[in-house]
Amino acid sequence: MRRLRKVAVIGVGLIGGSLALALRRAGFAGPVAGFDRDRGALERAVALHAIDEIAESVSEATRGAELVVVAVPVRAIGSVLHDVGLALDAKAVVTDVGSTKAEVVEIARHELRERFPRFVPGHPIAGRESSGIEAATLDLFKGARVVLTPVAETELKATDFVRAAWEAAGARVSTLSAVDHDRIFAAVSHLPHFLSFALVSEIASRPDSADLFSFAAGGFRDFTRIAAGDPAMWRDVLLANREQVLQQSQAFRAALSQLEASMSAGDSQALEDAIAAASAARARWQPGAGLSLD
Amino acid sequence: MRRLRKVAVIGVGLIGGSLALALRRAGFAGPVAGFDRDRGALERAVALHAIDEIAESVSEATRGAELVVVAVPVRAIGSVLHDVGLALDAKAVVTDVGSTKAEVVEIARHELRERFPRFVPGHPIAGRESSGIEAATLDLFKGARVVLTPVAETELKATDFVRAAWEAAGARVSTLSAVDHDRIFAAVSHLPHFLSFALVSEIASRPDSADLFSFAAGGFRDFTRIAAGDPAMWRDVLLANREQVLQQSQAFRAALSQLEASMSAGDSQALEDAIAAASAARARWQPGAGLSLD
Repeated sequence: MRRLRKVAVIGVGLIGGSLALALRRAGFAGPVAGFDRDRGALERAVALHAIDEIAESVSEATRGAELVVVAVPVRAIGSVLHDVGLALDAKAVVTDVGSTKAEVVEIARHELRERFPRFVPGHPIAGRESSGIEAATLDLFKGARVVLTPVAETELKATDFVRAAWEAAGARVSTLSAVDHDRIFAAVSHLPHFLSFALVSEIASRPDSADLFSFAAGGFRDFTRIAAGDPAMWRDVLLANREQVLQQSQAFRAALSQLEASMSAGDSQALEDAIAAASAARARWQPGAGLSLD
Repeated sequence: MRRLRKVAVIGVGLIGGSLALALRRAGFAGPVAGFDRDRGALERAVALHAIDEIAESVSEATRGAELVVVAVPVRAIGSVLHDVGLALDAKAVVTDVGSTKAEVVEIARHELRERFPRFVPGHPIAGRESSGIEAATLDLFKGARVVLTPVAETELKATDFVRAAWEAAGARVSTLSAVDHDRIFAAVSHLPHFLSFALVSEIASRPDSADLFSFAAGGFRDFTRIAAGDPAMWRDVLLANREQVLQQSQAFRAALSQLEASMSAGDSQALEDAIAAASAARARWQPGAGLSLD
């Protein structure tokens, strides 16, 4: 594939910065222009060779770019896409990296209007416990899964283009409907976070929480690692996907009630069967090779 | 401290085997006699120098021992303590390693009768994902916490003796009442396991579970690692501590309902506050140095 004339990365954090590094290394991107509200992040991105030029605005970054990657938190996507829409070349393709998709699709439809068919919603299943441009690496997406959720209007060529970019960065790309995406990630990502937040905030609120934490060990450590997530980011993800998360939470409650009932009744067989089903499923499952933390 | 004339270890798995190794290395134990229902485990324990002699029964192991360590699953403690009681020297001390304590105390009171004051209930907060004598190591308890839950009748000297044994193995020893122990571990160990079993068994029961697992990543991996626990062991732990676990589960449900209500109402401040409380508490907390998985 020819090297692109210009790529714009809006938001040079862990995801935007790592994608820029990987696209440059793969020879997919020529010059990369970056924009971020945090000027320091932009300067560090230049120093780390993630981007070539600092743009002074979303519009400036967008102008002349063949590919615009919007790698900002979900809450900022609307205003960024608005500015992108004002400056976008007629043939340019836009993608995002948000971890919920149905809401983003509606925002993009509204903000990009006649350019919406060249917007390809995306979600790389990668992340680290650390964030920011300093944590960006060339190989963050090597072997990672990326989900694209094109809609009926999305141009096939646009989807293929964004797929090629992610594959150049080493990712394995799947497509799903936005609704399926949001349902699946509500179950395997948003709900686990939600439960971990509920457990840890409840324990932290008790008068004897210091005692409780002092006896917690490895099982608690693993189960609650995701409770240390960024509050503003997770607030937005949960609210953006709230219907699906609430539905998944209901399904979880029903399973919990059943386990509680088995325990109350002293039905050791039913309790063991449920634990055995969980244990076997968990032991069978291994996250895909190269997958990082989501 | 003088080297003990004889130590008996009933159950030569990960915990019993590691303690035997550590007590021998520390010069605390002289000869260690082991008994296990699994003859192969006993032979491997000899080969690994965890024990010196294989006993043919609980009684044979117990006879002449100054310290008897009962390191069997919770469900087997009653019958083992029964046999220990029949053969126990008048001055010998008995301890166990079960992860629930109030029920074990009642079983021991019943089985050991006049010897009950020399029974010191114990719970080492250590473990590995692997189990069995093959996983035993000299330093499993180095820096690990051990909780002893003596009752009013327990002889002070017996508690001090068991404390000295664990300290010789490198552990940090605390005492708690059995009820406090069970409440604390219901909150920070049994409930997280219970929730993880509920989540994973529910997802595994769905028709599209393969899809769901295929998109799960690092957050799910950590949150559900404890769901791979041994079903029979966890069935017994949960049943042995069911009142406390059910109480903790109620408290958790209340916290979950509140988070759900904030989400339904779109109350982003309340949602963020709860997540921030969880995130700050989790970030402050670090499991003690040297603590292994529970």
